Amino acid sequence: MPHVTIDSGVPGIRGLFAFRPETARPLNALAEVLLRGESTLTRGERELIAAYVSGLNACSYCTASHSAFAAAQLPEGADLVATVHADAATAPVTPKLRALLAIAAAVQRGGKNVTGELVAAAEAEGATEVEIHDTVLIAAAFCMFNRYVDGLATDTPDDDSFYAASAERIVERGYTSVADG
Amino acid sequence: MPHVTIDSGVPGIRGLFAFRPETARPLNALAEVLLRGESTLTRGERELIAAYVSGLNACSYCTASHSAFAAAQLPEGADLVATVHADAATAPVTPKLRALLAIAAAVQRGGKNVTGELVAAAEAEGATEVEIHDTVLIAAAFCMFNRYVDGLATDTPDDDSFYAASAERIVERGYTSVADG
Repeated sequence: MPHVTIDSGVPGIRGLFAFRPETARPLNALAEVLLRGESTLTRGERELIAAYVSGLNACSYCTASHSAFAAAQLPEGADLVATVHADAATAPVTPKLRALLAIAAAVQRGGKNVTGELVAAAEAEGATEVEIHDTVLIAAAFCMFNRYVDGLATDTPDDDSFYAASAERIVERGYTSVADG
Repeated sequence: MPHVTIDSGVPGIRGLFAFRPETARPLNALAEVLLRGESTLTRGERELIAAYVSGLNACSYCTASHSAFAAAQLPEGADLVATVHADAATAPVTPKLRALLAIAAAVQRGGKNVTGELVAAAEAEGATEVEIHDTVLIAAAFCMFNRYVDGLATDTPDDDSFYAASAERIVERGYTSVADG
């Protein structure tokens, strides 16, 4: 049972958005710019970073949600997402994305774990400064979102169709559509 | 040296805001509503939660900044902030704030550490559901901000006057003034 009263009965973070619309607006604006705004990383790649960090934080709701959002926007689909969750170091992603995922994993453990070596390795694979910045901030933001969702003990649907429907809505309408209702 | 090029030379998170204004806007909007928006927790109490979590995450820039912002807005000033950093369980804060700080510490370790017992203890001291929600989200948000600042290896000024000047600006003009320049 959630730690606060979710009148709507809506699970996960969406119930919290309805509980406190004042904070829902900037949270969704942040997700929108980070995961869907203009970027040289594709939307699928950015959702994959979000899904990966959510998995490291063991947040079931966010992992299922962003894995579905990544799968829906990556040409390789759900199979690639599964290989990243299993072992990001050997998953068949581009060398640049592999280096960015290593940075994301370091952020998840704590910001000081992002070493100059990890950054240099990503740059050697062609990552730009903005891509490195955005990877760090996506990983950091999911250390927030994951703690928000689990810290208030929100409900996590078991049914895959819930996440598939969410993916369809996010792909079509984006995150700010959630905050607007 | 920061992991990305901060042309402005501005330290901490403010250099990152100038590097990537697109993400600065929602980040500052979130800080503004959480730490300064309408609430039954005072601004000083909310900054104290932010400072405490930043200390637990060992983020020197955020700890110094939000400790200064808390001290400037709490009647008891910097002495109370220091006692919370030393031992939140025995610091002379109200029983309600002590229970909320225990929730914040649990969030810092990971969302699933926020137990029904911690929430019930806060409610027994008079905490409302919105106060519990906001405490969880403030703590979660600083697990993001701290990782953002340290994950990009931003500079941390040694000089107390830097943080005192920041406190003056935040108290007078708020967080959204930062994103606007």
